[in-house]
Amino acid sequence: MTQLEMARQGKITKEMMTVAKAEGVEPEALRQRVAEGTVVIPANPNHRGLVPCGIGAGLRTKVNANIGTSPVFPEWEPELAKLEAALAAGADTVMDLSTGGDVKTCLREILRRSTVPVGTVPVYEAAVRTREKSRPVVEMEPDDLFAAIEDQARAGVDFMTVHCGVTKRIVEALKERPRLAGIVSRGGAIMAGWVLHRGEENPLYLQFDRLLEICREYDVTLSLGDGLRPGCLADATDRPQLEELMVLGELVLKAREAGVQVMVEGPGHVPLNQVEANIQLQKRLCYGAPFYVLGPIVTDIAAGYDHIAAAIGGALAAWAGADFLCYVTPTEHLGLPTVDDVREGVIASRIAAHAADIAKGLKSAWMRDTEMAWARRRLDWDRQFELALDPAKARRVRRERNPFDQEVCSMCGEYCAIDLVNKYL
Amino acid sequence: MTQLEMARQGKITKEMMTVAKAEGVEPEALRQRVAEGTVVIPANPNHRGLVPCGIGAGLRTKVNANIGTSPVFPEWEPELAKLEAALAAGADTVMDLSTGGDVKTCLREILRRSTVPVGTVPVYEAAVRTREKSRPVVEMEPDDLFAAIEDQARAGVDFMTVHCGVTKRIVEALKERPRLAGIVSRGGAIMAGWVLHRGEENPLYLQFDRLLEICREYDVTLSLGDGLRPGCLADATDRPQLEELMVLGELVLKAREAGVQVMVEGPGHVPLNQVEANIQLQKRLCYGAPFYVLGPIVTDIAAGYDHIAAAIGGALAAWAGADFLCYVTPTEHLGLPTVDDVREGVIASRIAAHAADIAKGLKSAWMRDTEMAWARRRLDWDRQFELALDPAKARRVRRERNPFDQEVCSMCGEYCAIDLVNKYL
Repeated sequence: MTQLEMARQGKITKEMMTVAKAEGVEPEALRQRVAEGTVVIPANPNHRGLVPCGIGAGLRTKVNANIGTSPVFPEWEPELAKLEAALAAGADTVMDLSTGGDVKTCLREILRRSTVPVGTVPVYEAAVRTREKSRPVVEMEPDDLFAAIEDQARAGVDFMTVHCGVTKRIVEALKERPRLAGIVSRGGAIMAGWVLHRGEENPLYLQFDRLLEICREYDVTLSLGDGLRPGCLADATDRPQLEELMVLGELVLKAREAGVQVMVEGPGHVPLNQVEANIQLQKRLCYGAPFYVLGPIVTDIAAGYDHIAAAIGGALAAWAGADFLCYVTPTEHLGLPTVDDVREGVIASRIAAHAADIAKGLKSAWMRDTEMAWARRRLDWDRQFELALDPAKARRVRRERNPFDQEVCSMCGEYCAIDLVNKYL
Repeated sequence: MTQLEMARQGKITKEMMTVAKAEGVEPEALRQRVAEGTVVIPANPNHRGLVPCGIGAGLRTKVNANIGTSPVFPEWEPELAKLEAALAAGADTVMDLSTGGDVKTCLREILRRSTVPVGTVPVYEAAVRTREKSRPVVEMEPDDLFAAIEDQARAGVDFMTVHCGVTKRIVEALKERPRLAGIVSRGGAIMAGWVLHRGEENPLYLQFDRLLEICREYDVTLSLGDGLRPGCLADATDRPQLEELMVLGELVLKAREAGVQVMVEGPGHVPLNQVEANIQLQKRLCYGAPFYVLGPIVTDIAAGYDHIAAAIGGALAAWAGADFLCYVTPTEHLGLPTVDDVREGVIASRIAAHAADIAKGLKSAWMRDTEMAWARRRLDWDRQFELALDPAKARRVRRERNPFDQEVCSMCGEYCAIDLVNKYL
């Protein structure tokens, strides 16, 4: 039985207990939210060593890090270093988006090492298999796609992104009335290409029940992908995006009926003044399902610094009610991230998540900042490092930029305001 | 005559012409805003080689970079490299906050090389002079402070931060009812210490007319400092902060009466959900004077990444109406920034400023993002680099992370969504 089914039967599972304790909420309150579907606990029983994590209403905002190979960088070993970096930086989940080399081994190794929930986009593995047969990805067989989904579920994947909402109707309408950036979701583009190439309905939509059966068996949490998310500010909150969101809303209800945990993915590229509306629309149209946003980035021109553009959008989104932030790294739009980029991306998203948790009044978030203020007032550097989001970097900067051992820092030195205040105030 | 006085007389100066052209606004509309004080043009006639820049209502959000020596890093030469980095990264103004070594030479060299407006906090030079006489900074003579102000005005400084609002009444009340982080403004702490040590009124408040005379003579724009800005989230938007803001509002009116251009500085450490209120309060209490915010940073625990915390707060602040963002670098709270930190800080603030300008509907901001979207759609990399906020970094990442020459990028390779869409949609 899935967490959702057990919650509905009034059972508080050990996974719920773990999450309740970590979040400081009552187990029974958490169970109710799992039962109503506003909280998901992606926890595939086949993922050994997993520490369960809750995503949704009233919980700390979570951060996901995407890792995985690509055709240009097909070796899986470097991806394990990225996994380590992501975990060390405090990622709450990781997604293996491998599309190069031995994707099966890569996923297995990540699952083996990851203590946090692992997500995938199984259409990637199906695409790789199709290419291995020297056929274009749009000739992928639906059965091969479902085989990849089942394989990955059996391997222990905790949540899966599936682009069920890229329906024939929506894709044909998009072809009729194009938008500036078309489709920028990789999975979304594969499904749209498939639909147009075959002239058939998206199998993930057509055979949604088949998908639900697999997910129910392994308690895989569905993450309904936003294949039509805007790829530039000019496309944000447009008709194709909202049409897909409405389809996803329907599928949320179907998934819940089938006892399958489900969340919904969202944009993407969104101007600052449309972020809140996007969250409200998702919450309404998708019946309060946890919302998982990619960024959003609030400008198109920050290549090299998209983690910062995403932190701005992510903070606003999470404050408005988004539950789960997918990080964006500095190399987004340019290439596959390095280990350093992964760390930078996770920290940037964690700043956004934490700032939003503070704005939402989350007590544990406030307490940490207040502790930091006290440590600053006392010029207690060790405590400041402990409380910093990245203690190692804070410690390193202090060491490098303070050649002499002094209580104050090299910015103000003897003109330190805190020092003056401690003396005179 | 100052820009303000000339604007009031109906004259459109060449500085106003330059600003109007750069901003794409009608010169007469700009003149009116300068006349009413909602726009300032910090342009000291003694600053040779200055390209004037406007700050305020309806204009592009501006970004300031703080540079300058400190007691631990007293050499001024490295600060010139930071000036270059700040200008190359697109800073609209710089402030020389030197407190170490030969501060006069440092300022002179920065003024000589800076094509953008240069600001200072003259109490720092007065503090350095006081320390040179082996006296504690709180024993500074008011005449020495005014001498530093006049010296710097004569040298060509375009705008000056003066902590006039740290009055005896407010400081004594703060002593009576302390806040968590006390005073974290360096200039604010010096003035507060002075007030308590001497038991006298803050000379910058008491002799505000004397200050105005100097500013009027050299057309120095006053930047009324927020000495009582919160130094942690727990102190944000509290009584001392707002009491000072009300004093600054009075002084705005006095400055305008005297024909002196004036803007107002703001926090600091502010939770996301209080940012907008802070902007509205300043705009109301300070009669629409341009608002210059430091960050704000939206969490206290981002040491090592405070530029990101500041980009989040700055984007929200500028969207809500702040006109001018002071950057925060990754070394804030840890030490004096390096050249790299300066560049990172400027870019982070520019992302915030640009995202806000887009949200406010600024046409030039929208156009650049739309151009970028077209370049992406065409996979036109050279054009993407040109349009990126930091073309050099975007180009370098693309080169480093794409070992093989291919049209797509190493994140998706042959699974590139744009490529698929171009083929099938």
